[in-house]
Amino acid sequence: MKETICALATPPGGAIAVIRLSGKETFQILAKVFSKNISKALPYTIHYGKIIVPSMTKDDGMEVIDEVLVAIFHAPHSYTGEDSAEISCHGSRYIIQRIIELLIQNGATQAKPGEFTQRAFLNGKMDLSQAEAVADLVASTNRITHDIAMSQLRGGFKNELKELREQLLHLTTLIELELDFSDQDVEFANRTALREVAQNINHHILHLTNSFHTGNALRNGIPVAIIGAPNVGKSTLLNALLHDDRAIVSEKKGTTRDLIEDIIQIQGVTFRFIDTAGIRRTKDQIEKMGIERSMQAAERAQIIILLTEQNVPFPDIRLKEDKAILHVINKCDQSMPSSSYLYHKHTPGQYIHISALTGDGMKILEEALLREASIPEIADGETIITNIRHYEALSNASTHLQKVLDGLAPDKISPPPTDLLAEDLRLVLSYLGEITGGSITSQDILSQIFSAFCVGK
Amino acid sequence: MKETICALATPPGGAIAVIRLSGKETFQILAKVFSKNISKALPYTIHYGKIIVPSMTKDDGMEVIDEVLVAIFHAPHSYTGEDSAEISCHGSRYIIQRIIELLIQNGATQAKPGEFTQRAFLNGKMDLSQAEAVADLVASTNRITHDIAMSQLRGGFKNELKELREQLLHLTTLIELELDFSDQDVEFANRTALREVAQNINHHILHLTNSFHTGNALRNGIPVAIIGAPNVGKSTLLNALLHDDRAIVSEKKGTTRDLIEDIIQIQGVTFRFIDTAGIRRTKDQIEKMGIERSMQAAERAQIIILLTEQNVPFPDIRLKEDKAILHVINKCDQSMPSSSYLYHKHTPGQYIHISALTGDGMKILEEALLREASIPEIADGETIITNIRHYEALSNASTHLQKVLDGLAPDKISPPPTDLLAEDLRLVLSYLGEITGGSITSQDILSQIFSAFCVGK
Repeated sequence: MKETICALATPPGGAIAVIRLSGKETFQILAKVFSKNISKALPYTIHYGKIIVPSMTKDDGMEVIDEVLVAIFHAPHSYTGEDSAEISCHGSRYIIQRIIELLIQNGATQAKPGEFTQRAFLNGKMDLSQAEAVADLVASTNRITHDIAMSQLRGGFKNELKELREQLLHLTTLIELELDFSDQDVEFANRTALREVAQNINHHILHLTNSFHTGNALRNGIPVAIIGAPNVGKSTLLNALLHDDRAIVSEKKGTTRDLIEDIIQIQGVTFRFIDTAGIRRTKDQIEKMGIERSMQAAERAQIIILLTEQNVPFPDIRLKEDKAILHVINKCDQSMPSSSYLYHKHTPGQYIHISALTGDGMKILEEALLREASIPEIADGETIITNIRHYEALSNASTHLQKVLDGLAPDKISPPPTDLLAEDLRLVLSYLGEITGGSITSQDILSQIFSAFCVGK
Repeated sequence: MKETICALATPPGGAIAVIRLSGKETFQILAKVFSKNISKALPYTIHYGKIIVPSMTKDDGMEVIDEVLVAIFHAPHSYTGEDSAEISCHGSRYIIQRIIELLIQNGATQAKPGEFTQRAFLNGKMDLSQAEAVADLVASTNRITHDIAMSQLRGGFKNELKELREQLLHLTTLIELELDFSDQDVEFANRTALREVAQNINHHILHLTNSFHTGNALRNGIPVAIIGAPNVGKSTLLNALLHDDRAIVSEKKGTTRDLIEDIIQIQGVTFRFIDTAGIRRTKDQIEKMGIERSMQAAERAQIIILLTEQNVPFPDIRLKEDKAILHVINKCDQSMPSSSYLYHKHTPGQYIHISALTGDGMKILEEALLREASIPEIADGETIITNIRHYEALSNASTHLQKVLDGLAPDKISPPPTDLLAEDLRLVLSYLGEITGGSITSQDILSQIFSAFCVGK
């Protein structure tokens, strides 16, 4: 952490851009490039001035790269915990590039992805679960994923883990006490009581690992496939669903276009439509999406919308039992079905009548999607695991805790030696410590975690 | 300007996002959504706190939307000249959307494109030419366009116009003095001296309008077409040219991809390759770009690279005289030409030998492009007109000044009445005033000018 790092923290292409600078030499570097003397400036203040470079070709010997605002933060009261500054410049790529080059020429280093947050972690401003929550928060697209990340960022998960670790430490202490007196063959700890404590901890850990299914679905979106015969209106339905949920964030000039298409949010739950290229193409050319391709999409989906229209039977395809299937009959704005038995004959059950064209029935379809997503109610402040690294650490912790539980089983004929139990407990502690970062000593693992962040974060 | 406006000033999708708020109610609105009391905060200070909404479903009755930094500016010492604030939040679309919605719910209005800069203009923080320079500066992609916009933003053009207007006002005063005494039929002003002053002013204006050709080329890039027979390496050449000039601005995760392809910068001059789709496609399928399509591209180009390879004659096409043509022979890394007469026979002149594959000769080709672009040397502080609105205003001013000059001609048999001269001079002043905005009274025209800006600027 000897280097002073810099990076663009906003995407280029807007009205303004923010360049971050953090490290011991922050103010020395600024002194070389900023027109204003800020050596005696108070922290948390903003300074208007020019980013300048000496230039032989300019009349006044100075090239002005931009007029900027510089915000100043003093260690340890900054995001990274170090001396740092934020330069707000005009959002031109040329200006951004020149300023970053200039900072590098004067001693700064281009920050690696996530390096600002990594420094915040290393300087004790947050634990690893909070640092990861920063990335999750930035990536959050709806209320639920936002709330989960915000709760994690504000220390909800960290505190829960702290409590678990304290209980485990108490358990370990009791068991290790026996080890110290192992030559005397005494049992300090009541095995039944110990087992109860371990069981409670394990329940808690299993509760957390179980939440990963929900967390993962919320984070990545629930995959949905639309399957139907040609001309039943798959493309119209897809557009109708997407149209209901256009983001309010302005997509006007200068802001970036959303590259992630075919995603909708219903009451904070994300649904991801898969293999829509085949559906979208139908407008331009004759529908080619065969039954085989439909089946591939269906296999990757959790919910399948089987779409047909009046007087046309549903496609007769076999789907795995674990899929939720919605039978949807389109074009209800046209003539009523001559006889509804047609659908019942082939596939008894509930049918949703819609008109993708007029929007009739779309609300009912959206509610059905939400129901089939089966996202449980999330209590305020409840921890939901969304990060696979946390899930794996918790699973490993639980595996070793289960060994301890087995060893403590009352009907155990040959109970394992106490030192084996203690060893497993230490492993459980170490796995939980991985989540908050306390037991991670390898720089490689840390770098790997932060490499998934974006630059400037 | 009664409303308090808000808008996202950075593109969404980065580590952080900045939301701008400006207007009389800035601090009342902030008081409702920001967890910290900043009613007594000093200007130019930054405050860390939470954006919050009362919530029935949250345990503590408060939903935390984000932890943010709020920067405070007091009127008139702000960009807009009004009370204003900048909220730096995490770059999530959900958070951005929630904060903007919240500001609007509490009395703010979504800003129109360019509205912050428009207010800066209306509050006298800058003239119209400077306001327009803000948009140019943000859009600038190279040193020259940047320097032109920066000089304009810093008042270079404004001061030049001010001087012209002062000279014109002096001229007008002298002529109008005659009007006051028109019944006495005296000539206060020496016509020869008047004419000399008017001529000097007109020279200056014509110098500015003439710079528009350069300004326009610099701003939009000089169009270049690559034309050649199949398999001579057009696609390889295009890629080699583009590859030399990849932007340093990080294109990693979280920053937007550059949508503008096929543009290169050579020593600050932008070249735009036209109709490259036909060239790019050659990798995937058999080359179809026929002679007709090549000709269309050539017609829109200022510089044409006629590409061939050794022992193959140059394509025999007719090009207009005003085009600059570079004869380029590719694949010089392969066997030397058996006889160089082949090219000379068909098209005598200079040839550039390159290998687009190995990069040999590419520097020479780039220098030739730069030479043919014939961008004149731009002196430090010289004003270059890049804005068509300014060009039109200057052209109109010059037209009417020419009428004055004609009227003042010494050999004029029936000189026009003095009041006609005065009327034309007043029009010249008015046209020049349009550039700085002084003579624009219509809100519609202003709105139109600023509508080309992006939101948040």
